[in-house]
Amino acid sequence: MDALKSFELWPVGYVRSALKARKGAPRQPWMGAPGAWLEIDPAFEECLKGIEAGQDIWILTWLHEGRRGVLQVHPGGDLGKPLTGVFATRSPDRPNPVGLHRAKVVSVDGTRVEVDGLEAIHGTPVVDIKPVREGAREC
Amino acid sequence: MDALKSFELWPVGYVRSALKARKGAPRQPWMGAPGAWLEIDPAFEECLKGIEAGQDIWILTWLHEGRRGVLQVHPGGDLGKPLTGVFATRSPDRPNPVGLHRAKVVSVDGTRVEVDGLEAIHGTPVVDIKPVREGAREC
Repeated sequence: MDALKSFELWPVGYVRSALKARKGAPRQPWMGAPGAWLEIDPAFEECLKGIEAGQDIWILTWLHEGRRGVLQVHPGGDLGKPLTGVFATRSPDRPNPVGLHRAKVVSVDGTRVEVDGLEAIHGTPVVDIKPVREGAREC
Repeated sequence: MDALKSFELWPVGYVRSALKARKGAPRQPWMGAPGAWLEIDPAFEECLKGIEAGQDIWILTWLHEGRRGVLQVHPGGDLGKPLTGVFATRSPDRPNPVGLHRAKVVSVDGTRVEVDGLEAIHGTPVVDIKPVREGAREC
């Protein structure tokens, strides 16, 4: 095994959304996530070739307001629930606050990708996009 | 929008697998991925509380052999297929080579998590684990 070291993640774009603050962001999709735009940096425009309206995609983000020192949380912020390891929850507070979001592409306009719903606040860095493969282990 | 900057990703553990080289790794799950162990660093042991045998999890890895300057590929390495943006493929070559793997937990032994199948080679850094939420937008 290698010794522990770190890796550098580059933003490839940012989320443009009507959601402006973490406090108001829906924690679960059935709480209603608004449509949003992924504004990809022109340096990565070529990476988008093949992304089309109607596709389901995974969007990986950097949850920049996540607190990295948090190892356990009360799920959903409910103090009545026992402390749970963040790997068993979807808390944005975790050692590596990478967000994983599934959405459908509504339209693509150059380096701007419109998606049908995204629980990430305005300004959240996007770090990767992957196609959803139903039934596949790896996306 | 913020100016572009980078983020530091910390390994929280490593993959222990019989898969030793990228060349031999299955590209798709139906090609057969072997069972594997996630060896989590003891510093992150608390994050595992709530991870149990039988659960489906997402494993986020750092595909350390991925080439970050690659923006387009021929899917599956098939030159007969047109060049496609890496965001529309699952190529490990991409600006941020974060791997997304779905697996079922077979057993948990302290900081070692056994999973039923994983298309990642031995020594691949693990950066996050999240519960799978069927039907949810965000995992």
